[in-house]
Amino acid sequence: MSLVQITIVGYIAKDPEEKFTPNAKKVLEFSIAHKNRKEETEWFNCTVWNEKRIESLGWLAKGMGVYVTGELTVTAKDDKVYRNVNVDKLQVISGKQASTEEEYF
Amino acid sequence: MSLVQITIVGYIAKDPEEKFTPNAKKVLEFSIAHKNRKEETEWFNCTVWNEKRIESLGWLAKGMGVYVTGELTVTAKDDKVYRNVNVDKLQVISGKQASTEEEYF
Amino acid sequence: MSLVQITIVGYIAKDPEEKFTPNAKKVLEFSIAHKNRKEETEWFNCTVWNEKRIESLGWLAKGMGVYVTGELTVTAKDDKVYRNVNVDKLQVISGKQASTEEEYF
Amino acid sequence: MSLVQITIVGYIAKDPEEKFTPNAKKVLEFSIAHKNRKEETEWFNCTVWNEKRIESLGWLAKGMGVYVTGELTVTAKDDKVYRNVNVDKLQVISGKQASTEEEYF
Repeated sequence: MSLVQITIVGYIAKDPEEKFTPNAKKVLEFSIAHKNRKEETEWFNCTVWNEKRIESLGWLAKGMGVYVTGELTVTAKDDKVYRNVNVDKLQVISGKQASTEEEYF
Repeated sequence: MSLVQITIVGYIAKDPEEKFTPNAKKVLEFSIAHKNRKEETEWFNCTVWNEKRIESLGWLAKGMGVYVTGELTVTAKDDKVYRNVNVDKLQVISGKQASTEEEYF
Repeated sequence: MSLVQITIVGYIAKDPEEKFTPNAKKVLEFSIAHKNRKEETEWFNCTVWNEKRIESLGWLAKGMGVYVTGELTVTAKDDKVYRNVNVDKLQVISGKQASTEEEYF
Repeated sequence: MSLVQITIVGYIAKDPEEKFTPNAKKVLEFSIAHKNRKEETEWFNCTVWNEKRIESLGWLAKGMGVYVTGELTVTAKDDKVYRNVNVDKLQVISGKQASTEEEYF
């Protein structure tokens, strides 16, 4: 058995959006840009699946600094890399004085 | 500014190898296999760059369980994904009673 | 705003116990022993609060190797230190081939 | 074998200081304040031991937002808790546009 976890500290690039999967499950999506060592921008598309968490994150907005951990899925198409993160923890660290209740979930 | 870090807990797939980069820098390479949620195997090719660390890792071997953190670089070729990890922390958690001195670097 | 998170990779010391808080909330408790650099044993008393998670962890048992993250609370009494962890992530890494569904919560 | 690691995202409370241990080893010390769930302030006294790292951190200053991982040692005296962190990774995330070379060590 093994475990792989991604940790991201960065800023939410634009307002998160609620979307629906093909089988009508509500998810929350947002993205974070990261400049790597080579000064290339990597985009991390983050998805929150848990419905209770989504409800508690209505205040999440563009520009907030967040600490995110989750599972990274990488796909490639036409030799371009796409990074998706299934979020399991999210905590705001700057941009809004969120209450502790909201931060932890 | 942002930060992205990968954390891996898994087993070293085969004995680590010392290699030389094109400009003659010695590195240590090993890989870890991870089965994701979809039961697909993802390979993480790990590289240790610091020479002092490499010297202190002579005992690292196939089958050891390790905790690794580092920077993940993903590339794509012919729609296949390649995952490389620039290791910044490595600690053995099973398979050999390494001394504390060896474990931490 | 700041964030502090503890990460533990270790073995469950004895079978986890379901307990009730003074206001009748069910929690799951287990502990992990860690030998620090000085070869002293530190005990981490871990608590899972989320009821749904507790239900899904019925199979958790003594001896399993786990990866745990959470919030650490430290208290002192008679100059002895007590470490409690409010678990926010738990994944089994050895000792039982748990299904992915059970592992992630 | 087990592993315990602390992760802190917070602000450096005052300018870091170079100090010398009783056996004349140079170390770099700084501290980070963290407000926990109960709105109590916890102080983390952080120490960088590696001499090369210390040299590369001359620019580190009060007010910078940092991501720190390390080993936590907790002691108690007169029922007060003291938290010390042996830093193994430090990256600035706000307050100064540090070059990548400086950030990673």
